[in-house]
Amino acid sequence: MPAKFDRATFEQLLLKRFFFAPAFGIYGGVAGLYDYGPPGCALQANLLQLWRQHFVLEEDMLELDCSIMTPADVLKTSGHVDKFTDWMCKDVKTGEIFRADHLVEAVLEARLEGDALARQAEGSGSSAPATTIDAVKDGKDKKSKSKSKKPGKVAAVKLADDVRESYRSVLAQIDNYDGEGLAQLIEQFAIKSPETGNDLTAPTEFNLMFESSIGPTGHLKGYLRPETAQGQFLNFKRLLEFNNDRMPFASAQIGRSFRNEISPRSGLLRVREFTMAEIEHYVDPANKDHPRFEEVRGQKVRLLPANVQLDGRSDLLEITVGEAVDKKIVDNQTLGYFLARIHLFLVRIGIKPDRLRFRQHLSNEMAHYACDCWDAEIHTSYGWIECVGCADRSAYDLTVHSARTKEKLIVRESLPEPRVFQRWQIEINKKVFGPAFKKHAKQVEEALTSLTECELETLKTRMDEQGGKSTITTPSGDEYEVTSEMFTIEHATITEHVREYTPNVIEPSFGIGRILYSLMEHVYWTREGDEQRGVLSFPTVVAPIKCLVQPLSNNKVFTPFLGDIASRLRRQGISNTVDNSSVSVGRTYARNDELGTPFGITIDFQTVQDQTVTLRERDSTLQIREKVGVAAYAVAVHVVLR
Amino acid sequence: MPAKFDRATFEQLLLKRFFFAPAFGIYGGVAGLYDYGPPGCALQANLLQLWRQHFVLEEDMLELDCSIMTPADVLKTSGHVDKFTDWMCKDVKTGEIFRADHLVEAVLEARLEGDALARQAEGSGSSAPATTIDAVKDGKDKKSKSKSKKPGKVAAVKLADDVRESYRSVLAQIDNYDGEGLAQLIEQFAIKSPETGNDLTAPTEFNLMFESSIGPTGHLKGYLRPETAQGQFLNFKRLLEFNNDRMPFASAQIGRSFRNEISPRSGLLRVREFTMAEIEHYVDPANKDHPRFEEVRGQKVRLLPANVQLDGRSDLLEITVGEAVDKKIVDNQTLGYFLARIHLFLVRIGIKPDRLRFRQHLSNEMAHYACDCWDAEIHTSYGWIECVGCADRSAYDLTVHSARTKEKLIVRESLPEPRVFQRWQIEINKKVFGPAFKKHAKQVEEALTSLTECELETLKTRMDEQGGKSTITTPSGDEYEVTSEMFTIEHATITEHVREYTPNVIEPSFGIGRILYSLMEHVYWTREGDEQRGVLSFPTVVAPIKCLVQPLSNNKVFTPFLGDIASRLRRQGISNTVDNSSVSVGRTYARNDELGTPFGITIDFQTVQDQTVTLRERDSTLQIREKVGVAAYAVAVHVVLR
Repeated sequence: MPAKFDRATFEQLLLKRFFFAPAFGIYGGVAGLYDYGPPGCALQANLLQLWRQHFVLEEDMLELDCSIMTPADVLKTSGHVDKFTDWMCKDVKTGEIFRADHLVEAVLEARLEGDALARQAEGSGSSAPATTIDAVKDGKDKKSKSKSKKPGKVAAVKLADDVRESYRSVLAQIDNYDGEGLAQLIEQFAIKSPETGNDLTAPTEFNLMFESSIGPTGHLKGYLRPETAQGQFLNFKRLLEFNNDRMPFASAQIGRSFRNEISPRSGLLRVREFTMAEIEHYVDPANKDHPRFEEVRGQKVRLLPANVQLDGRSDLLEITVGEAVDKKIVDNQTLGYFLARIHLFLVRIGIKPDRLRFRQHLSNEMAHYACDCWDAEIHTSYGWIECVGCADRSAYDLTVHSARTKEKLIVRESLPEPRVFQRWQIEINKKVFGPAFKKHAKQVEEALTSLTECELETLKTRMDEQGGKSTITTPSGDEYEVTSEMFTIEHATITEHVREYTPNVIEPSFGIGRILYSLMEHVYWTREGDEQRGVLSFPTVVAPIKCLVQPLSNNKVFTPFLGDIASRLRRQGISNTVDNSSVSVGRTYARNDELGTPFGITIDFQTVQDQTVTLRERDSTLQIREKVGVAAYAVAVHVVLR
Repeated sequence: MPAKFDRATFEQLLLKRFFFAPAFGIYGGVAGLYDYGPPGCALQANLLQLWRQHFVLEEDMLELDCSIMTPADVLKTSGHVDKFTDWMCKDVKTGEIFRADHLVEAVLEARLEGDALARQAEGSGSSAPATTIDAVKDGKDKKSKSKSKKPGKVAAVKLADDVRESYRSVLAQIDNYDGEGLAQLIEQFAIKSPETGNDLTAPTEFNLMFESSIGPTGHLKGYLRPETAQGQFLNFKRLLEFNNDRMPFASAQIGRSFRNEISPRSGLLRVREFTMAEIEHYVDPANKDHPRFEEVRGQKVRLLPANVQLDGRSDLLEITVGEAVDKKIVDNQTLGYFLARIHLFLVRIGIKPDRLRFRQHLSNEMAHYACDCWDAEIHTSYGWIECVGCADRSAYDLTVHSARTKEKLIVRESLPEPRVFQRWQIEINKKVFGPAFKKHAKQVEEALTSLTECELETLKTRMDEQGGKSTITTPSGDEYEVTSEMFTIEHATITEHVREYTPNVIEPSFGIGRILYSLMEHVYWTREGDEQRGVLSFPTVVAPIKCLVQPLSNNKVFTPFLGDIASRLRRQGISNTVDNSSVSVGRTYARNDELGTPFGITIDFQTVQDQTVTLRERDSTLQIREKVGVAAYAVAVHVVLR
């Protein structure tokens, strides 16, 4: 981050140029809901198109577009109804609601900052990152259109060295606390409601899904999906069939998801409605190698593994994914492959590699479905922000949905050589069995068929010894006598031609809004001059508009040239904007620097005489004079080649 | 519609090839919710890209991406909370719920069909369209994965001629009945619950918005947007500013909307969640001309105006939009312009022009915000289906939101010449006024300032005659004496440099799912042969995949050719699929005919010798042999030129 990054000025620019704005602004806004204006919308569309090229087309992923409204049954099974929660606590007097972990984090960071100030005053010179607590609440703050943060009061109070260390250690693993842990922290560190100083209630769980009701009866409960993944899992059977039953393969989905955040602040970084792009890559659990791993083996990434964080440290390990997988720092090739591909994608759209890292989840912060997870985190003025999650969901989702629906969600793989082996198995003689046990028959049968191979062998031996008789105990503890007419136990020879397995899922999941915001911070800078002017140096490939076309003035002689150049560019598929508002050329350039438009073509009186125009490049402000066709062609070549 | 169109076979094909499938199928599905599989998703993406080119880029519309979750206050103001409803009635015994207008329509159509059968049996030979009533209900029909209709029982009962006529007349204006009207029809025609024959309750209103609650307090009610339009209106001020305050202009949005339909049947045609593409074109109410109207003046469209429908007729008027606007059949140029542009778009993606019409809404069926509306209706096996609404929303939305929020949603237009005119106006003398009327001062002041110019002139005359005294009556009926010291009334000279007005909105609104489904019906046909094979003859521009690449067999010598051709195509941006499943070439062709893939390239042993391949065209099944590069190039040229 450039030292002089000024978030207030930056966010004013984004708002003024309508990259985005608080949704329902004229109604006072709702925390966590935003609208993208024309440049934000174009930036998002360009980013998503690139995402499709980089992931979906490159690997022939099967793209889906699934329902957002989801019946409760599905999300009960997936675990979201019970476990997709955050901890919240209330100011005991005002009833104001806080997200417990965020509150603890903000208070401790503010205290550390106060400590740094106090030590600085003493001349010790240490410093800590600035922390702010803002106060925008749902529907209360009628006129707060910009949700920019206002710094809370930071008192310069020196902390004892051991207290400071304990704060730092807590902050390094803040995502690792559950409700009880958070309650302890609140008590231990005497954390109060920030504005009132009142006590806080103990943290309680709040489910983050928006609830609704489907149909006119009111009996069918639904939720807005919290992720696009479930729709993909439910279609697994159709997808596998569509892929001609071949493994491995991936499905993908771009779409809106919803999370009813407790108290969203931090602008676009924590919102209640967002566009995601998710990949579900299905692999054989016995072999998580990736066929194209060698292509990325040498790619360097910066890792922050779980064990480093548990030591209270945050130093990064710069390493090739090949080495990371070989050393088992990253569990398998497929996970490693995606870390590399995510890194390449983010850098290609303009994220600075030195502000990008992959952080492994701690065990308690992992989503309920995940067995390993690495987040791509991007550094912004808000700190390190999770922008892409890359989780190993193992067979969790397919298994639970299959168990609930009795639909087989498996892969059947023809074995190259049939597998021949011996197995103890039991066959019930229904004719004798039913009459012998009557209403208990099912219970006894289940007790017998659930015996392990080893137990079957023991039973067989015992019955042979006891003249074809023995007893069997049901799970409820009842004992029944069984005889050898009732079933046959034998050591059978089995020939298997097909192997059945539930695939594991590696899931790279992209939060598009967070990536967009981080990108805008990374490409923002200020041009020195008479006035300091903001510039957004988007890479051409994602820039909302590629070329500005403007006349020197409103003089009618320029009109045919405007149309000619605009249509030349459009024919090449180059988005452009004709700006014939009556402001000076300099002001138009400044406006388009703020919009991140990489090129500008200006038509003046010389154009009328010799058909040359001025072509200006955004970052360098270099200007050259060229024939109309050459200028348009130069822009097109540049856009296409980038 | 081809005479032999068989919807069951057609829908089986769409399901088998995973164009779409009922969402949550393995959970038994939910009526009105669908997932798009890979070909459906690609078809939709191609269609939306074309929509963006045809509308947004062509006219520099300002695209937005707004919040779906909407606070209740916004939709209360827009009228949706009170008026966005359908009429439903219940079976008095089973409680089964029906959408009242659909039920009346289905029953009357079934009776007409029965009448036709009876008359046919008599040899009269008249016929009526087939009608079906299906029976899929939310979450009840566990295994009904395909929501295809099953025909209800149609009894061959002859109707009296006058009864038949009255049925036809009701059906021609079925959208024109309100709750009371529907109740009368149900009684008059003795309409019962179709399966049980039980009585029905009187129709009651049901709001079609999905309700939820925003944030953890439960106090902020939200709805899922029923249209993308509101987000655009709320951003009007920012949009106008972004457009450098120039009029007219349009905003546009592509996104998901939600309607909690009472009893959705008819597959993709009536769903609870759908992708829309909406344009809000803002015009000066004093001048609804369109600057590019002349470009479309000669475009022929087929119209069904409101007055024709009220006559109980449905014959179409084939006319140029120029003539339709000149004759005031279509109200204004902007509306006419969009009818033409919509027609061109739909025909370009593959809708058959002879199965497309524009129907004007009847006054009672118009949405609460509209003052005129023409629907683009496409003919399918379900009858004529509304796919694009083109409504004149006048100044309705901007006016109500402005009134509610006190935010000025207007255009300020510099007048080329200042407008100088005389106007009667009143100025209150606050010093005298307050003491004279005390707590009634505000009331009296409002009564005075709300007088029209004519009333002011009269008051002035009367006071002059009565020695500077008169009386004024407040709206509540109280009378007060006023004197000439309290205010000044004069005929002032006003010079206006700026004109202020609230723009009117013309809104073309596209239901993407309905267009997709109708398109699939239009391009579907059956190839005669040993087996009848389905073919989807999508125009190349929207076809999900442009080219199939396949080897003659799994022999490894073909592998490098597969990769070479696939990468040649990809470099040209041509989507393709490599099919090396071990089935015969004929079966692969058949599969890709069903997917609507226009070209197929096959690699065989001759390829290995002379680098030639077979290139096959889908509709004609013509095959030619060409060098690898020529074949790939031929496909690319075709795709790009179409």
